[in-house]
Amino acid sequence: MSPKITTELLKQLRQVMKNPKFVQEPVQAYIVPSGDAHQSEYIAPCDCRRAFISGFDGSAGTAIVTEQQAAMWTDGRYFLQAAQQMDNNWTLMKMGLKDTPTQEDWLVSVLPEGSKVGVDPFIIPADQWKRMSKALRSAGHDLVPIQENLIDTIWADCPQRPCKPLITLDLSYTGVSWRDKIVALRSKMAERKVMWFVVTALDEVAWLFNLRGSDVEYNPVFFAYAVIGMNTIRLFIDGDRMMDPAVREHLQLDSTLEPEFKIQVMPYGSILSELQAVGAGLSPKEKVWLSDKASYALTEAVPKAYRYLTPYTPICIAKAVKNTSETEGMRRAHIKDAVALCELFNWLEKEVPKGTITEIIAADKAEEFRSQQKDFVELSFATISSTGPNGAIIHYKPVPETNRTLSVNEIYLLDSGAQYKDGTTDVTRTMHFGTPSAYEKECFTYVLKGHIAVSAAIFPNGTKGHLLDSFARSSLWDCGLDYLHGTGHGVGSFLNVHEGPCGISYKTFADEPLEAGMIVSDEPGYYEDGSFGIRIENVVLVIPAETKYNFKNRGSLTFEPLTLVPIQTKMIDVNLLTQKECNWVNDYHQKCREVVGAELERQGRHEALQWLIRETEPLVRVQ
Amino acid sequence: MSPKITTELLKQLRQVMKNPKFVQEPVQAYIVPSGDAHQSEYIAPCDCRRAFISGFDGSAGTAIVTEQQAAMWTDGRYFLQAAQQMDNNWTLMKMGLKDTPTQEDWLVSVLPEGSKVGVDPFIIPADQWKRMSKALRSAGHDLVPIQENLIDTIWADCPQRPCKPLITLDLSYTGVSWRDKIVALRSKMAERKVMWFVVTALDEVAWLFNLRGSDVEYNPVFFAYAVIGMNTIRLFIDGDRMMDPAVREHLQLDSTLEPEFKIQVMPYGSILSELQAVGAGLSPKEKVWLSDKASYALTEAVPKAYRYLTPYTPICIAKAVKNTSETEGMRRAHIKDAVALCELFNWLEKEVPKGTITEIIAADKAEEFRSQQKDFVELSFATISSTGPNGAIIHYKPVPETNRTLSVNEIYLLDSGAQYKDGTTDVTRTMHFGTPSAYEKECFTYVLKGHIAVSAAIFPNGTKGHLLDSFARSSLWDCGLDYLHGTGHGVGSFLNVHEGPCGISYKTFADEPLEAGMIVSDEPGYYEDGSFGIRIENVVLVIPAETKYNFKNRGSLTFEPLTLVPIQTKMIDVNLLTQKECNWVNDYHQKCREVVGAELERQGRHEALQWLIRETEPLVRVQ
Repeated sequence: MSPKITTELLKQLRQVMKNPKFVQEPVQAYIVPSGDAHQSEYIAPCDCRRAFISGFDGSAGTAIVTEQQAAMWTDGRYFLQAAQQMDNNWTLMKMGLKDTPTQEDWLVSVLPEGSKVGVDPFIIPADQWKRMSKALRSAGHDLVPIQENLIDTIWADCPQRPCKPLITLDLSYTGVSWRDKIVALRSKMAERKVMWFVVTALDEVAWLFNLRGSDVEYNPVFFAYAVIGMNTIRLFIDGDRMMDPAVREHLQLDSTLEPEFKIQVMPYGSILSELQAVGAGLSPKEKVWLSDKASYALTEAVPKAYRYLTPYTPICIAKAVKNTSETEGMRRAHIKDAVALCELFNWLEKEVPKGTITEIIAADKAEEFRSQQKDFVELSFATISSTGPNGAIIHYKPVPETNRTLSVNEIYLLDSGAQYKDGTTDVTRTMHFGTPSAYEKECFTYVLKGHIAVSAAIFPNGTKGHLLDSFARSSLWDCGLDYLHGTGHGVGSFLNVHEGPCGISYKTFADEPLEAGMIVSDEPGYYEDGSFGIRIENVVLVIPAETKYNFKNRGSLTFEPLTLVPIQTKMIDVNLLTQKECNWVNDYHQKCREVVGAELERQGRHEALQWLIRETEPLVRVQ
Repeated sequence: MSPKITTELLKQLRQVMKNPKFVQEPVQAYIVPSGDAHQSEYIAPCDCRRAFISGFDGSAGTAIVTEQQAAMWTDGRYFLQAAQQMDNNWTLMKMGLKDTPTQEDWLVSVLPEGSKVGVDPFIIPADQWKRMSKALRSAGHDLVPIQENLIDTIWADCPQRPCKPLITLDLSYTGVSWRDKIVALRSKMAERKVMWFVVTALDEVAWLFNLRGSDVEYNPVFFAYAVIGMNTIRLFIDGDRMMDPAVREHLQLDSTLEPEFKIQVMPYGSILSELQAVGAGLSPKEKVWLSDKASYALTEAVPKAYRYLTPYTPICIAKAVKNTSETEGMRRAHIKDAVALCELFNWLEKEVPKGTITEIIAADKAEEFRSQQKDFVELSFATISSTGPNGAIIHYKPVPETNRTLSVNEIYLLDSGAQYKDGTTDVTRTMHFGTPSAYEKECFTYVLKGHIAVSAAIFPNGTKGHLLDSFARSSLWDCGLDYLHGTGHGVGSFLNVHEGPCGISYKTFADEPLEAGMIVSDEPGYYEDGSFGIRIENVVLVIPAETKYNFKNRGSLTFEPLTLVPIQTKMIDVNLLTQKECNWVNDYHQKCREVVGAELERQGRHEALQWLIRETEPLVRVQ
């Protein structure tokens, strides 16, 4: 990997930082965050501005360019990659290390007195603006919004913002019509006494209107905003997508509707002026509900006294609780996904010993098998196909420079998933195609025990996911082992593979209580730098649990695995399992065999079926 | 319990709320919080102002008196008690219920436009002032500090502020001299670049100077503040306590000392003016370190730009990590405490069947046995001696109206502890003096499994206690049971029985990571309203754990029980225990027998020794 040469680009950026065409007053520093205007985790190429200016294209990082310097903040996952991708114009700021200054502290230390620091107000979330602005102000500087993005002004071949056709989802997929979702949203608004709700996250717009898109890779979303009033619906979206008859019918754009369900379609770029108009017309007590992560630009459009900010929007919370149509769809999607993986693993078992299968070939083959399944749309994230030491790199993605050949001597870790029209999958299996060592089996078994501890946990209604995180680690901890990532994340229903507001993590975050219908991943791991990685991941559905007693009538919950892919028994040291854990594995494999076996049979995939039957032989524990 | 008649008192309070002798302008409301000027959990009688004005003497509650109304906010533990103790002048505001307004919202709803709300600035913590003041201001009212406490002006027979003699602790108890503690504190101050540190919590003053007092029941502390500079030490304390030659020598008040260790003794009441003088003399970059829970009065004495506020002070954190002298002292104290409880339980076993032992008699007897032990000072909290349904009241304390007779038909729960000069104890045992039902045994065994799960847990260095809380609940959760309190709290070393900054709780609070030398309680429970309560509590010491591997060289921790009192095996359903849990109980009992047995022997307490031997017979699990 050779670094991007940025000397000329930085020179151009520093010129526009002083150019009155773009800035009212010259700015002495310009901040280039990672995100887009919707605070998306995955972004479109046209939004990869930080990668364009610096060369560093990891998923997290903030660039700051001053008149003399250029600095990049990123976290431990990306220290190496950033150092390789950036030239000498850039200073790498290693976040999490003790001596690394915060962006604010660094700015204060390098800026001349009374400086102006510019940032695109659409890209910076309001809460970050507030913190940065306060720190700069107390040191005599000013954070100023620059309406035109300065990177865009120097980005000659900047890709167009995608504007791809939409997919309409009918009731059989969504279970609830967009009209009913609007009714439910308005009732939440009434409860909180707010008159307007601004939808800024792309997956929230998609969910609300039962539409999907493909503007962003892996995430079936489209660029849009919405502003929902008690009697109005405004959808801000570009292109001729609203000309599509299927979309017009789905949204009933040409029907005679009660006025409160009439959708006004407006240009994507007009959100700010429309919201400002809404803001200007507010009478006392007419609050506007926004996510506290919405952009500074949109937040500022509403006068402070009228803002109602929450960490999670009512859509985010409603979206997390899947209805029967959605869970049934998720079940179907996971069966199809399991069929593809049975085919893949059967194929790998035969091909790996030949020494011709690389990580990239394996990943491509996984995609090929998935794409044969009904309603396959695309992958849900970049496949992590990693063998040997690459498996220890938690966010690894094989590229030609790192591409390693699978062998019978190394552990292989595959973390992959897909978007189907009926659901989103995300599964990790760790395999050995030869004979694993006793130590590898031992570590795998601890990870498995942690996986089971979460999956089989019974807990009271209203429990927050972070309270389950230690269950996943306990067996590893007993031997002095651990893994440095959370245990689970929310999963969307044919939507983003990572979604809020629930999860399972030791990191204290404001997760909402788990409730029946929520879907999360269960993915403990163990990683040994330079040698191997182990992770066992199922997507699991929160379901009611039957218990002997029922304290305070609260009811209990547990998980049902949606993922139905065998866990390689060759990797298990059965004697480290309790009888209960052993039964869990056998019951799980029995279900895989029955449910996925039937589908393999139906699809005539006999060889994969034989593989499934072999891989789901019951474990026997020696007492 | 008949309510306190407060009509006349409220009339008087409403008069002084308008009396220019006490208030610059009349206040339309006056807030009476629970606490004292040091944000203590336990307070002296002279600080029980809220109880005086309302009659309600629970440990938590805030009274607000307006010209027309009087309202009391308290939590679920005290709804019944508050309702019984207060007369019709008072409205009970049940915190935690959905429709209960916050204090701010209630004030805004009842106050006439542009009102002033008064509060004693010494009693209200700065963070609470900030929140309350902001809410009132945004509704057009003002929160104003009233220097003279208005309750004190009408409290004719207000008790004197206690001013009892001090106890000096030598190195054999404390392990570190006060001089070395000052040196360590100054080094923490230098690290954070602060020039002054204000000690406001009573246990922090006591710890820093290796002094103890008895101004507050159960807490061996004394009323004082300290202000530590890089070259000065000021101790604010009243009375002739500094005339005591032992104290003078301990603090080296009459020695020729390096100036930076010379303690200037000043009147308790002069803290504000002295701190204001310090604040006025600050040059830029001379920060003053305060707890963010310090009073508004003291926080305001330091100009905002010079304040350095943290949730936990360096003393709080240093105090939590016990040194070898302290842990050895704690071990000794717990052995003595176990001797007293063996005597008690042996005595109860004989006396209870006679039907003459009440909860109060049992509690008194426990105190009597403890007071026979060397270096006994006082109890560490009010003994919770509860039988049958009283056991389900988590913060129960027997009073004549509720006093119940122990019997062979009901579970007895005793949560008690003492202050010895070498350590603080806090232990709960749940006993049955007849034959427990299968259901009682089942519940007890789940609680025991939770207790063991925490006590035997192995976890990485740096783990926060809240990550262990679910281990204590898992066995209860499996059967649909739970308990509605945290699992553990920090315990002081001959200091407060509840101390920060660590603990084990599902409530997300900013607990500091556990480290070797910290001492916490492990006390899961199960409570069935109207019938019984179960709790099993040991005080445990965080110690390094030996593990097979050592991920990232972080090291592991576990707990060593300091409490060595048998857990009644009669209450255990052995078949619900795993072999590992069974071994834990047997090992624990073996240690009780050896360590406490030797001390019983030494003290010639032969009958109690026989009881101990009977109660520590190994459990046998039927496979």
